Amino acid sequence: MLSGIFSCTEFERTLNRYRDLTTRELLRSIPRGGPNGLYELVSIYPNRLGKGFRAAVCFAACGALGGSLRQALNSAVAIELFHNAFLAFDDFQDGSITRRGSSTLHRRYGTAVALNVANATNLLGLQRVLENREILGSAATWLIAEETSRMMQCSLEGQAIEIDWIRENVCTLGAQDYLRMCLKKTSWYSFIYPLRVGAIVAQSHARADQFCRFGWYLGAAFQVQDDILNLTGEYSKYRKEIGGDLLEGKRTLMLIHLLNRCGAKELRTLRRFLGKSRDQRSQSEIDWIYAMMLEYGCIAYARKVARQLAGAALLEGLTAFRDTLDSEYKQFILQLVLYVVMRNH
Amino acid sequence: MLSGIFSCTEFERTLNRYRDLTTRELLRSIPRGGPNGLYELVSIYPNRLGKGFRAAVCFAACGALGGSLRQALNSAVAIELFHNAFLAFDDFQDGSITRRGSSTLHRRYGTAVALNVANATNLLGLQRVLENREILGSAATWLIAEETSRMMQCSLEGQAIEIDWIRENVCTLGAQDYLRMCLKKTSWYSFIYPLRVGAIVAQSHARADQFCRFGWYLGAAFQVQDDILNLTGEYSKYRKEIGGDLLEGKRTLMLIHLLNRCGAKELRTLRRFLGKSRDQRSQSEIDWIYAMMLEYGCIAYARKVARQLAGAALLEGLTAFRDTLDSEYKQFILQLVLYVVMRNH
Repeated sequence: MLSGIFSCTEFERTLNRYRDLTTRELLRSIPRGGPNGLYELVSIYPNRLGKGFRAAVCFAACGALGGSLRQALNSAVAIELFHNAFLAFDDFQDGSITRRGSSTLHRRYGTAVALNVANATNLLGLQRVLENREILGSAATWLIAEETSRMMQCSLEGQAIEIDWIRENVCTLGAQDYLRMCLKKTSWYSFIYPLRVGAIVAQSHARADQFCRFGWYLGAAFQVQDDILNLTGEYSKYRKEIGGDLLEGKRTLMLIHLLNRCGAKELRTLRRFLGKSRDQRSQSEIDWIYAMMLEYGCIAYARKVARQLAGAALLEGLTAFRDTLDSEYKQFILQLVLYVVMRNH
Repeated sequence: MLSGIFSCTEFERTLNRYRDLTTRELLRSIPRGGPNGLYELVSIYPNRLGKGFRAAVCFAACGALGGSLRQALNSAVAIELFHNAFLAFDDFQDGSITRRGSSTLHRRYGTAVALNVANATNLLGLQRVLENREILGSAATWLIAEETSRMMQCSLEGQAIEIDWIRENVCTLGAQDYLRMCLKKTSWYSFIYPLRVGAIVAQSHARADQFCRFGWYLGAAFQVQDDILNLTGEYSKYRKEIGGDLLEGKRTLMLIHLLNRCGAKELRTLRRFLGKSRDQRSQSEIDWIYAMMLEYGCIAYARKVARQLAGAALLEGLTAFRDTLDSEYKQFILQLVLYVVMRNH
């Protein structure tokens, strides 16, 4: 299946092809005109070009199950719109400064405008979901609408869990809490939803349920790797503030590991740091925590967990696609698992 | 039609009956459990009991066209959920301090939590729209979903217009700009959407288009009256900060009239005031503007416009419901027009 040496470059070429297909159609369909400060700003985040994982997963799942990319295009665009809306809300909720190498929307245009843009981005996504009716018919479109509603609910619940941990300064978490949060906050909208929608588009609705565990593990591996890159990545590649998660008090797997491993005195200092508001936290404190994370092996631990999760995801992926014909689409999905933990941005 | 003396008390009794029906069902259907700081906070604004105009309009339109309240219940609940989500976003975007007699969500729980709650409230509304399928069938539910998408687009565009006026300190507006903004920001989601959805539920879809002008004028009359109450109302009844619109720099009809009427020197001072950020504006400046509004007859002008708009709405309402049988529902809708401009809260 993964015969030969996995080529990051070739994988990225395919990934970029899917992304360009999606971005072109997404940008084309944003309304022209309208009031100032709305639709023209919807295109800002998509124009900064993310990796386009989520749309690619939907395309590839649909293709692997015998559907066409054309049939999946509405869904791929909707998925990227939902993702960009989620980023705009999340950036604001976390107080993030940069996104994809430039200012976050709320920092550049103010919060009132940024929220309107986030809401409009979500709405355009919903409209794409409804537009499926013309090419997929009512029955499939209903299923996709229901998947969309479920995905949105999961994402909001995941977001609520994370915000609550920060707000209430929760310091007694384990790896299993982190994984549950990942399932809701990351895995569902980033992988489970695109996989399931891809299956519905390909008229293999019955398969959709086989993708939950695959998407969960894949999403968790992705999130752990993202947390690692946030701490150790290069800004020029990662394009978000390095160390931003610590500044925001995010309960990453590394932080949870540290909270469970460090000494009682360190724990008290750490708790005090996490109880502060974002702008009260200093760079020297961040450096101190980073040094402790190295000392207690938290980053090495997270790397190991990411690899284990990727292994579990690969197993689930092989099972889920067991009886489908070999194809470039199937290859792409399985390679994605490796890419997610090998990427450096 | 409006024979006898219009009784505010009796009208309010009917209004409260619709509201209680909607609120009970709305609160009942909010998910129990889930993460901290999400669903239990969705019920806060609905529990503070607004007037429930929007759901009532949907019920009454449906009833007047021969549908049942039971069939309209999902839509009425969805409409109030969308309204409450809109309030949560709007309060945050405007920096409002109180809503329905108590702290706004973002002031009490922080912005991150408030946004999640607003998003969850919207999502629960969308889920109610989709649930219509079980009792109304696919065709009607599609139409309602499309109406919902259009309503959301109008509201966002209206919100964007208003935010842009404040952000860019636009001071060269006329009454027609204000009415166009009202159409998008207030009329569509508050009246046109509930009327149209009521018609679809009653299987009178063809009638929906007759309601646009009626709903537009009614919504504009409502908004002008709301602006007047924001300036002249009693807090104990109105339950929002009196003078809050001026503090927020909102382009009300009174302010637009003042900008067009005052002298050149006053205009310069007014522009400077409107160019400041909210927290730089002082009470003495607000008092000065209020005095000018009295001097230039802006409030009397707005009262006159509200009455004229209500008159136009009444005419359109009578036309739209011309060939429907007389009923308590029809009476209620036409009385609503008078109530909207007669209310003192």
